[in-house]
Amino acid sequence: MRQPARLEALLEALRCLPGVGAKSAQRMAFHLLSRDRAGGLRLAEALRAALEGLGECERCRNFAEEALCPLCADPRRDAELLCVVEQPADVLALEQAGEYRGLYFVLHGRLSPLDGIGPEELGLDRLAARLAQTPPRELILATGTTVEGEATAHHVAELAREAGVAVSRIAYGVPLGGELDLVDSHTLSLALNQRKAL
Amino acid sequence: MRQPARLEALLEALRCLPGVGAKSAQRMAFHLLSRDRAGGLRLAEALRAALEGLGECERCRNFAEEALCPLCADPRRDAELLCVVEQPADVLALEQAGEYRGLYFVLHGRLSPLDGIGPEELGLDRLAARLAQTPPRELILATGTTVEGEATAHHVAELAREAGVAVSRIAYGVPLGGELDLVDSHTLSLALNQRKAL
Repeated sequence: MRQPARLEALLEALRCLPGVGAKSAQRMAFHLLSRDRAGGLRLAEALRAALEGLGECERCRNFAEEALCPLCADPRRDAELLCVVEQPADVLALEQAGEYRGLYFVLHGRLSPLDGIGPEELGLDRLAARLAQTPPRELILATGTTVEGEATAHHVAELAREAGVAVSRIAYGVPLGGELDLVDSHTLSLALNQRKAL
Repeated sequence: MRQPARLEALLEALRCLPGVGAKSAQRMAFHLLSRDRAGGLRLAEALRAALEGLGECERCRNFAEEALCPLCADPRRDAELLCVVEQPADVLALEQAGEYRGLYFVLHGRLSPLDGIGPEELGLDRLAARLAQTPPRELILATGTTVEGEATAHHVAELAREAGVAVSRIAYGVPLGGELDLVDSHTLSLALNQRKAL
């Protein structure tokens, strides 16, 4: 069906959002046009402001409006602890857990030579310089458990050892509060192999 | 956690989209910021252009950039048939079915006095004027089967009868291609009551 050109353009543009296909895009566009034009205009402006105004923190590479992100600029954080994560969303998840009071370094990905993602794309040169200039007491690896995540963790651990910084890795195993039969078999194998004496 | 203000504003603004909560908004914002800034800027521009440039077709009330929408401006459509639907999405669904070659009238809602939606909000005065000036051969009701949808259908049928226009209603019953035990009991009751002799 021939739709007005601006509606077609909006339906197409909405599909750049993750998890949004033709049907969801249609639902979103019609909702905004019929019922929430003010919200839609706010969204357009918020998108423009965020995409044009947010860069990377020069210390941790997380999203930031200024040279430093709010976490790196906060003097109450423990600068002796440095946690390395793959994505900004991981920082958010760890902050919501409320346990960690140190700083972060965000890789924005993991080593994947076939996709052209090498040490430079992950800012590992900048991480090495930071470890040399202001070495933390401990570097905590919190990368994922995919093959690429493991390779990335290995590479970062090497950098830390070269700089004489102690390295640790977050614990992997059976998550709390679930039924054992719902946990996948890889995690169960790992949990068995890494069992601790009581 | 303290996020940059522009990121907070974007997370908040994304939640005006239907079906998008805190977690999806986060996933969308991080995806655009990390991996598709060009797509995000295109979306911002498409939203602005659509919301500022799309109004209602003066004949059918569907979304339109000009005075008339593409369907009403198309001389190949059969102006003797007029199908009344609740939402622009219904027009799209009927057009995708490919069966109908007439014109439409979009109510943008259904009668719901408690929500302040009366005949005027649905453009029924405009529909009455159209039925008087250029009466179609047949008016087809394709409103929903909720209580409000039924009341709306009843009201529109009255308008058509006053104008001396024949009224029909699309068939309701068991959809094609499914298992009978997956159809809800209201639909099954209706299908039984409205059975046809062979």
